[in-house]
Amino acid sequence: MIGRLNHVAIVVSDMDKAISQYRNDFGARVSDAVNMPEHGVTTAFVELPNTTIELLYPLGTGSPLSRFLDRHKDGGMHHLCLEVENIGRARAQLQEKGYRVLGDGQPSIGAHGKPVLFLHPKDVFGTLIELEQA
Amino acid sequence: MIGRLNHVAIVVSDMDKAISQYRNDFGARVSDAVNMPEHGVTTAFVELPNTTIELLYPLGTGSPLSRFLDRHKDGGMHHLCLEVENIGRARAQLQEKGYRVLGDGQPSIGAHGKPVLFLHPKDVFGTLIELEQA
Repeated sequence: MIGRLNHVAIVVSDMDKAISQYRNDFGARVSDAVNMPEHGVTTAFVELPNTTIELLYPLGTGSPLSRFLDRHKDGGMHHLCLEVENIGRARAQLQEKGYRVLGDGQPSIGAHGKPVLFLHPKDVFGTLIELEQA
Repeated sequence: MIGRLNHVAIVVSDMDKAISQYRNDFGARVSDAVNMPEHGVTTAFVELPNTTIELLYPLGTGSPLSRFLDRHKDGGMHHLCLEVENIGRARAQLQEKGYRVLGDGQPSIGAHGKPVLFLHPKDVFGTLIELEQA
């Protein structure tokens, strides 16, 4: 069912510094920061040859990342995004096996404009996993 | 300097269950578990089309992962491993910019038989980054 690792998402406590770090110190290709008010995040993408690191920073007051940064002052690894061919089928198969889907249990449109869902980290050994229809 | 994402490492609280989960529930190709007493870990590899998820479980009494599992009972994301062409050159460049290398500051031979080093997570926004000479 799962395919490519689409991205690893990392929350950072200072987006400008993080972009500069990956770009100048680590020599990677990094996009500029983009605000996504409908998701409550600012993102930038570190483009590696085989996958992407998504840098995340909270945007606005109700950001889903604010609590994460409260608990992890410097930031830290936030989630893995794995590609699936068909999000509806993946959801049905996983729910049948007892996996919980966060939110209302339905796929939504993610930050990349594609259908996504998040599995409950308690069901996946403490790792937040996003499934994205490729 | 940085190249491919070699692997994402995840600590799990039950290796057999984690292997079964990725293999049977997520439909991925997963190696059998291998004990690496010299590193104090048991590992298994989830082979994705573009990279690898390394499942980790503590082995023996002095395992470097025991404290992680004490703090994260279910497990969680542990580190990212990024490839570099030349570990000595990468180390020199990063140390010159103030990055701290864990341990004695020298590269060592990692779990895959290649020279590796770990950057201090406080210097990389809370993310533990392993550099591996590809």
